[in-house]
Amino acid sequence: MSWVKKQAPGNERMQGISKSIKEGALAFLNAEYRLLAIFVVIASVALGAISYFVDTTHWIIIVAFIIGAIFSALAGNIGMRVATEANARTAEAAKTSLPQALKVSFGGGTVMGLGVAGLAVLGLSLLFFVFMKMFIVGEASFYDEMTIALEALAGFSLGAESIALFARVGGGIYTKAADVGADLVGKVEAGIPEDDPRNPATIADNVGDNVGDVAGMGADLFGSYVATVLAAMVLGNYLIKDMSVNTPFTDNFNNMGPILLPIVIAGVGILASIIGTFLVKISGNNAKEAQVQKALDTGNWVAIIITLAASFGLIKYMLPETMSMKFFGEGYVDVSSMNVFWSACIGLAVGALISVVTAYFTSLGKKPVLDIVQNSSTGAATNIIAGLAVGMKSTFASVILFAAAIYGSYELAGFYGVALAASAMMATTAMQLAIDAFGPIADNAGGVAEMSELDPEVRERTDILDSVGNTTAAVGKGFAIASAALTALALFAAYVTFTGIDGINIFKADVLAMLFVGGMIPVIFSALAMQSVGKAAMEMVHEVRRQFKEIPGIMEGTGTPEYAKCVDISTQAALKEMILPGLITIITPILIGLIFGAEPLGGYMAGVCVSGVMWAIFQNNAGGAWDNAKKSFEAGVEINGEMTYKGSDAHKAAVTGDTVGDPFKDTSGPSMNILIKLTCLVGLVIAPILGGHTAETGLAGNDDITKEITVEINDDGTTGNAVAVLTKTTTVNGETTTEEKIIEGTLEEVEAKVEAMNNDKTVDDVEVKIKKTVTEEIEKQS
Amino acid sequence: MSWVKKQAPGNERMQGISKSIKEGALAFLNAEYRLLAIFVVIASVALGAISYFVDTTHWIIIVAFIIGAIFSALAGNIGMRVATEANARTAEAAKTSLPQALKVSFGGGTVMGLGVAGLAVLGLSLLFFVFMKMFIVGEASFYDEMTIALEALAGFSLGAESIALFARVGGGIYTKAADVGADLVGKVEAGIPEDDPRNPATIADNVGDNVGDVAGMGADLFGSYVATVLAAMVLGNYLIKDMSVNTPFTDNFNNMGPILLPIVIAGVGILASIIGTFLVKISGNNAKEAQVQKALDTGNWVAIIITLAASFGLIKYMLPETMSMKFFGEGYVDVSSMNVFWSACIGLAVGALISVVTAYFTSLGKKPVLDIVQNSSTGAATNIIAGLAVGMKSTFASVILFAAAIYGSYELAGFYGVALAASAMMATTAMQLAIDAFGPIADNAGGVAEMSELDPEVRERTDILDSVGNTTAAVGKGFAIASAALTALALFAAYVTFTGIDGINIFKADVLAMLFVGGMIPVIFSALAMQSVGKAAMEMVHEVRRQFKEIPGIMEGTGTPEYAKCVDISTQAALKEMILPGLITIITPILIGLIFGAEPLGGYMAGVCVSGVMWAIFQNNAGGAWDNAKKSFEAGVEINGEMTYKGSDAHKAAVTGDTVGDPFKDTSGPSMNILIKLTCLVGLVIAPILGGHTAETGLAGNDDITKEITVEINDDGTTGNAVAVLTKTTTVNGETTTEEKIIEGTLEEVEAKVEAMNNDKTVDDVEVKIKKTVTEEIEKQS
Repeated sequence: MSWVKKQAPGNERMQGISKSIKEGALAFLNAEYRLLAIFVVIASVALGAISYFVDTTHWIIIVAFIIGAIFSALAGNIGMRVATEANARTAEAAKTSLPQALKVSFGGGTVMGLGVAGLAVLGLSLLFFVFMKMFIVGEASFYDEMTIALEALAGFSLGAESIALFARVGGGIYTKAADVGADLVGKVEAGIPEDDPRNPATIADNVGDNVGDVAGMGADLFGSYVATVLAAMVLGNYLIKDMSVNTPFTDNFNNMGPILLPIVIAGVGILASIIGTFLVKISGNNAKEAQVQKALDTGNWVAIIITLAASFGLIKYMLPETMSMKFFGEGYVDVSSMNVFWSACIGLAVGALISVVTAYFTSLGKKPVLDIVQNSSTGAATNIIAGLAVGMKSTFASVILFAAAIYGSYELAGFYGVALAASAMMATTAMQLAIDAFGPIADNAGGVAEMSELDPEVRERTDILDSVGNTTAAVGKGFAIASAALTALALFAAYVTFTGIDGINIFKADVLAMLFVGGMIPVIFSALAMQSVGKAAMEMVHEVRRQFKEIPGIMEGTGTPEYAKCVDISTQAALKEMILPGLITIITPILIGLIFGAEPLGGYMAGVCVSGVMWAIFQNNAGGAWDNAKKSFEAGVEINGEMTYKGSDAHKAAVTGDTVGDPFKDTSGPSMNILIKLTCLVGLVIAPILGGHTAETGLAGNDDITKEITVEINDDGTTGNAVAVLTKTTTVNGETTTEEKIIEGTLEEVEAKVEAMNNDKTVDDVEVKIKKTVTEEIEKQS
Repeated sequence: MSWVKKQAPGNERMQGISKSIKEGALAFLNAEYRLLAIFVVIASVALGAISYFVDTTHWIIIVAFIIGAIFSALAGNIGMRVATEANARTAEAAKTSLPQALKVSFGGGTVMGLGVAGLAVLGLSLLFFVFMKMFIVGEASFYDEMTIALEALAGFSLGAESIALFARVGGGIYTKAADVGADLVGKVEAGIPEDDPRNPATIADNVGDNVGDVAGMGADLFGSYVATVLAAMVLGNYLIKDMSVNTPFTDNFNNMGPILLPIVIAGVGILASIIGTFLVKISGNNAKEAQVQKALDTGNWVAIIITLAASFGLIKYMLPETMSMKFFGEGYVDVSSMNVFWSACIGLAVGALISVVTAYFTSLGKKPVLDIVQNSSTGAATNIIAGLAVGMKSTFASVILFAAAIYGSYELAGFYGVALAASAMMATTAMQLAIDAFGPIADNAGGVAEMSELDPEVRERTDILDSVGNTTAAVGKGFAIASAALTALALFAAYVTFTGIDGINIFKADVLAMLFVGGMIPVIFSALAMQSVGKAAMEMVHEVRRQFKEIPGIMEGTGTPEYAKCVDISTQAALKEMILPGLITIITPILIGLIFGAEPLGGYMAGVCVSGVMWAIFQNNAGGAWDNAKKSFEAGVEINGEMTYKGSDAHKAAVTGDTVGDPFKDTSGPSMNILIKLTCLVGLVIAPILGGHTAETGLAGNDDITKEITVEINDDGTTGNAVAVLTKTTTVNGETTTEEKIIEGTLEEVEAKVEAMNNDKTVDDVEVKIKKTVTEEIEKQS
C-alpha cells in the first residue's frame, strides 16, 4: 500500500479527478454501510433469538456475525481505497512506461487481493482459536463441542456473506446505472467517446467501476473464501466423528487435523500468491495484450502449482493415511488420504477448465464472439438473439464440468472431498483477486487520462491493460461461480448432516414444490436487479440529456457538467434497489424452513443452486461475449467480405447488445454467486432450529447399541412378561459413554416397541432414536 | 370441416394466395414427415430391442408407438388443412360481416380442436381396449398384467410426443425465421407494412403461422393430452393396488374405475367443448376486441363448468367413496373420493389463474407492457432489458401457483390427485385449441386481405380478430406450460413407482450431479432453437435484400418477388435445425439411465422439469410482452407526456424487442413443454430396463409377510438350532397367492439373515426383497 502511495500521483487535474472518484466511491460506501448497520442490528436480534431458544447455538454467534460483517466491509474498503489511489498513478506511470503502469495497477490489485485473503484467514483463525478455547472443554463429546464452536464460526461467514450480497447488488446497480446511462446518451446519442469529460455521468461511471468491480468483487470473494473454509471445517468435524466409530481418532494436531487442514491450505495459498505476484511483470514498452496476459498467467500458475505441491505435503502430514468415511447409502468405506489430494486436484482442474470455457465463450476472435459480430450486421435484434444463444450455450460445458467435479470428488472422498476441492480452488484467491482488481484500476486510469486530456499514447497503454482486464474479469467470473457452486454444495452437505435428516427426497411433494420455488428465486432476483439497473439508467439518461440541453457550452468544453448530480442518482438508486433482492434472499429460506421443515428447505436450497448456477453462467458469459463483440469493431471486423468499423450500423447494433449485457455480467450475473452461497449459509445457521441436531446426530453415526430381550416362558409353552434392556455405547476420541433404556411388558408389546425403534424414528416413549442395526440375544428364564 | 369448405372462398387472387400458403405448408409438413419416418423406424428398432430384453415390455409397444406418431402427424395435418382453407374464407366473410368472419375463423379452429382431442381419445381408448383384451388374461395378478398393458400404451404417448417435439421445434424455427426475416428487411429497412405483397418473405411468413402456430401447437397439445391421460391411468392402476392391500378391490367397472376415470373425463370434456363452441358468437358488425374476447370466454367457461360438474358426478360414480392410498413416508391413508374432485378443482383453478397471470404480464395496457413501452424511449437496449425483466418476474406467481398445485393436489389425493388435476385442466383441450387456432387463421386472413389488396375495412375486421388471437395465444401458452408441468409431474410419479426405487434423494452425489445436468438441458435446448432461428433469419434477410436489389420493379409492385425461394429457405432451415435438439432430448435420458441408473435419471428428470418450467414461462411471457409493447404504438402511447406513434424511435426500439421476443415465444419457449414431457416419458418407457420393476414392486406395496422363528432351547438355557419360515401373502382383487421361504441354522445365523432382510435389501441368498414390517412369534420347543 505504501509503495503504491509513493508513486507519482500525476498533475493537479489528474489528482483532482482521482479525488472526485475516491470521494464519490467513499461517499457511496459510507452511505451503504450506514444502511447495512441497520440490517446488522436487526439480524443480530434475530440471531440472539435463535441462540436463546436453541441449546446448541451460543449467543457468541452474534459477535462472530458482527465481526464478519465488519471484516467484509473492511475488505471492500481497503480494496477500494488502494484502487482509487492507484488509478491516477497508473495513468502517470503510463506516460513513460507500460511495464511501470502494469506494476502500479497490478500492485493496487495485489494490495486488495492480499487484504481480502489476509482478513479472511485472520478472522477465521482468530475466532476459531477463541471459540475452541471457549467450547472445547471436555464436558460433552468432542464432536458436540466442536459443532457448537463451528456453528458460532458460521456466524462470521454469515456476516461476511450478508454484507457481500448487498455490496455486490448495490455496487452492481450503481456501476451499471452509471455506465449504461453514460453510454446511451454520451456514446450513442451525442457521439462523444467514453470517459469524455463533457459527459456528466463520466465520474459516476468511474466511481461505479470501483464500488462494483472492486469493492463488490472483493466482498464477494471474501465471502466465498470464508464460506468454503468454514464448510470444509464442518465436514472435517464429521470426518473425525466417522473415523472414531471403530477406533478412537488421534493425531498430532490435538486430534483435529481434518478440521485444521482447510485453514492451513488457505494460509499456504496466501504465501504462494505472494510469490506469484512477484512474477507478474513485463519488460518491453512495446508489449501487447498477449505479453501482459502471459505475465498474469505465469504468476497465477506458479501460485497454483506451489499451492498444489504444498497441499500434497499438508494432506500427507495432517491427515491419517487411511480414513473411515461414511458414504450415503453405502456405510463406512476406507479412504486413502491421497483421495483427498486428488479431490483437491479435481477442484483446481475444474476451476481452470471452467476458466478456459469462459474465456472461449467471451474472448475476442473466438467463434462465439465472431458469431455475435456477424449477427450484428442484420441489426440489434439478431445481435441480441445471438448473444443470448451464446450465453445459454456456454452453460453446457460448465455444468458438465461442475457435475463431474461433484461426482468425482464425492466418489474420491465424500463430501469432505467436495469441500477440499472447493478449498483448493479458493486457496489462491489472493492472486485471483489481484488479477481481477487490476482491470478496473487500469480502466479507471484510462478514464483519468481521457478526462485530463493526456497524450493519446497514455490511453493506448492503459487500453492494453484494460483489454486484458476485460478478459481476466470474465475469467474471474467463471472462477467465482465455480467456487460459489462448490462452496454451496459443501454447505449443503453440512446442512444435511447438521439437521440430521436422512437425505432430501424430491419424490415427496413438499420437497418437490420447494425445489420449484427455489428454482424461481434466482430468476426473480435477476429480474429485480435488471429492472433496478433499467430504472436507474433511465433516470441517468434523463439527467444527462437535461444537462446537455440546459448547461450552456457543455459540448464545446466551456461549461462544466454537474458530475455530482449523476453520482447522487447512482448512489440513491443503488441503495434503494439493493434492499428487496437482499431481503428475499435472506428471508425466504427462513420462512420455508420454519413452515415446511428441514427437508423441503433442502429442496429449496438445491433449487436455488441449480437454477442460480445456470443463470449465473448464462448472464456472465452472454454479457462478456456482447462486450467483446462490440470491442471487435474497434480493430475492425470482416462482415460478408467487407471490413466494418466503429460507427457502422453493425457497430451500433453491437453497442446495444453490450448495453443489455452490462447488467447481465456486472449486476445480476455475479449476484447469483452470493445468492446461492447465502441461501445455503442461512439454511446452515437455522438448521439447529429445524432439526435439533445434537440429540439426533449424536446417535446417528458413532454409537454402538445392543438390545437384550429377556422373556419368561410359561409351562404351556406360551410366553409371559418380557424385559428389554437397550445399551448405547458412544465412543468419541477414546472417551466412552454408556446410556441404558429399559422397556417392560408382554413380549408382543416389548418387541413392538423395540421394532418401532428400528422402523419409526418418532415413537414418543422412546427418547433415544436408533438408526443402527441391533444385535439380539434371547435367553430362556425358567 | 365441410361447413368451412362450403363458405365463399373469395376472388381468384385470394384463392391463389391461400393456395400458395397451403402448398407451402403441406410441402413443409410432407418433407418433415419424410424425415420423421426415418426417426420412427430407428426408434422402433430401439423399442424392439427393449421389448426383446425386458420381460414386462411387449413388442406391441412398437405398434403403439407408430400409431401414436401417425395420429400426432394426422392431428397437426387436419388442423393445418382446415386453417389454410379457412383463411381466405375468413377474409371473404370479413368483407361484409365481422360476426361471420369470427364464425368462419373460429369454425376452422373448432375443427382443429375437436380433431386433436377426438384423435387422442379415439387412439387411447381403442388401443387400451385392444391391450386389455391381450394382456388382462388372469395369468398373473391384475396389477402386473395391467402394468404391461399400460406400458404398451405408453408407446402411443411416446410416439405422439416425439412427433410433437419435432413439429414444435421445426415449426417454430420455420415460422420465426420467416417472420423475423420478413420484419427486419420489410418493416424496418424498407418501411413497407406487414404482409405487403412486395415482401418476398410474406408467403413464407404466412405459411409459418400455419406450420408453427397451428400444426405445432396441435401436435403439442395432442401430446400433452395423451400423456396426461396415460399418466393418470398408470397412477390409477397403483391406486387399485394400494386399495387392494387390506380388502380386495371391486367396483362396477370390471374393477378398474380409477383407471378408466381419466379417459372418461377426457371424453366428457370433448362433449362440453362442443357445447361451448356453439356459444362463441357475436352479434354486431361494430364489435370490438372486448366483445370477441367475451364471446370466447363465455364458450370457454361454459365448457369448463360443464366438465367440472360432470367430473363431480363421474368421480362420485366411478370411484369408491373411501380409498386407501399409500402416501410416501406416511403409509396408508384413507382418502375420500371427494378429495379427488377437489384435486381436479385445483387443476382447473391453477390453469385458470396461470392464464390470468400470463394475461397480466403480456396484455396491452397492463403495467408490465407499459413499463417496456416507457423503456423504449431510451432505445432498444433499455427495451430489451425491461422485456427480459418482465419475463423473469412473471415466473414468480406462476411458480408459486404451480408449487401450490403440486402440494395441494398431493395432500388431497396423492399422485393420483396430481394426475387428476392435470387431467381436469386438459379436459377442455378441444375448446382451448379452438380458441388458440382461430388466432393464426385470422392472422392469415389479414395477410390474404393485405396481399389481395382488399378494402382496408376487411383488414380492420381481421385485425380485431387477430389482436384477440394474440392475447389468447399468450394465455394458451400459459395453459400449455401449466398442463405440461403437471403432466410431467404425474409422469415423474409414475416413473418412480415403475422403477420401484424408494425415492429420489438429491443428497446422493450422482443424483445431485444429474439434477444439475438436467437443469442445463432446457437452456441448451433454448440456445440451439434461438441460434437456429437467428441463422435462418439471417439467410432470409440476405435473400430478401438480394431480391429487393436484383428484381426490377419489386418495390413499385410491377416485379413479382420469388416467394418460393423464401419458403424453401425456411423449410430447409427448419428441417436441418430441428434434429439436434430433438436428439438431445431423447438420447440424454437414455444415456443417463443406462450409465448411472434409475435414481440419477430421476434427478435428471427433476432438473429438466424445474429449469424447463422456468425458462418456458420466462421466454413465453417476455416474448408476449415485447409483442404487445410494440403493438401499443399502433394506437399511440404517452411517453414522458408526449404521444408517441408508429415510426418513432421508441417504436423502432420496440420492434427490435419484438424481434428478439419472436423466437422466445414461438420457438424455444413453447418447445420447453414438450422437452419436459418427453424427458419424463422416455424415462417411463425405459424404466423397466433400469428397475426390473415387476419383481420389486410386486413386493413393495400390497404384500403381507409373516415371519415365524422356531428355536430349540437346550437344557442349560442356551439356544440350539432354529428355523425361520417366511410366508408372503399377496392379495390383489380377491386373488390370494402364497409364497414360502425357509431359513435354517443357529439362532444367531437365522436372526441375522432375517434381520438383514429388513435392513439390507441386497442379501444374496434371499430372493424376495422385504420392505414391510414383519410380525414375529417365538415359540418354545421342548
